[in-house]
Amino acid sequence: MEQQISMTTLAVPDVAEARRFFEEGLGWTVAAAPSPEVVFFQIVGSIFALYSREALAKEIERPVTEDTTGAFTLAWNARSDEEVDQTFKKAVSAGAKPVKQPEKAFWGGYSSYVEVPGGHLLEIAHNPFWTIDPDGAITIPPEQ
Amino acid sequence: MEQQISMTTLAVPDVAEARRFFEEGLGWTVAAAPSPEVVFFQIVGSIFALYSREALAKEIERPVTEDTTGAFTLAWNARSDEEVDQTFKKAVSAGAKPVKQPEKAFWGGYSSYVEVPGGHLLEIAHNPFWTIDPDGAITIPPEQ
Repeated sequence: MEQQISMTTLAVPDVAEARRFFEEGLGWTVAAAPSPEVVFFQIVGSIFALYSREALAKEIERPVTEDTTGAFTLAWNARSDEEVDQTFKKAVSAGAKPVKQPEKAFWGGYSSYVEVPGGHLLEIAHNPFWTIDPDGAITIPPEQ
Repeated sequence: MEQQISMTTLAVPDVAEARRFFEEGLGWTVAAAPSPEVVFFQIVGSIFALYSREALAKEIERPVTEDTTGAFTLAWNARSDEEVDQTFKKAVSAGAKPVKQPEKAFWGGYSSYVEVPGGHLLEIAHNPFWTIDPDGAITIPPEQ
């Protein structure tokens, strides 16, 4: 079993609203949207999806919580503190709610949090200890 | 803003228990564990993390829901239906709860769901329409 997460899926009450945030707000390109209930984005070596909460509940045959705050987070990493500031502003102007303003983080980086449509949290951060390749792949260096 | 999710983080009540599942149960290698509250795994072009629910609540300055079921899912994709069967069994024997047995899925693939320690859902699936590179990177082909 390879060490990989192949897809991260957000269950959202309104797929069209969440799609607009990523597609129009952030400028991401949709790779596929085979039904109104699901949208797929190609990310680096992985897939990011938005999926109707109702459809997910039906698929997994159990209720899906409406409380989407904090039980997990996603992260988007920038290459500098300045890029965190810019991206935080861009996300907020695209419709995300500010949760935590960009600031020096206890772990040595620079971090902020927003709540994206659907209620999920996105950390926008700069981690000077991790490598980001030109293609956006992020790598944890071996422990010193 | 590159189209990328840099890190997927699960907030869990017991980090050591969740770590045991991935490290000992699934055989994954920990890239870094800078404190007892957090564990990082290198995945393909991205990072997967386990994080103390209490520590996350403190960091984001808001309560973190204890209801972790279904508001999102992660996926691990296999290269065949048989590998789905094998991996589902491996996950269950490693301590995951079976949620949905492997079966032909409405979208044309073969899919199962388990609940990993901490309460989050992991889909174990084979999608014959998507490409998995030798290094585990998963790619959505252009729409036909």
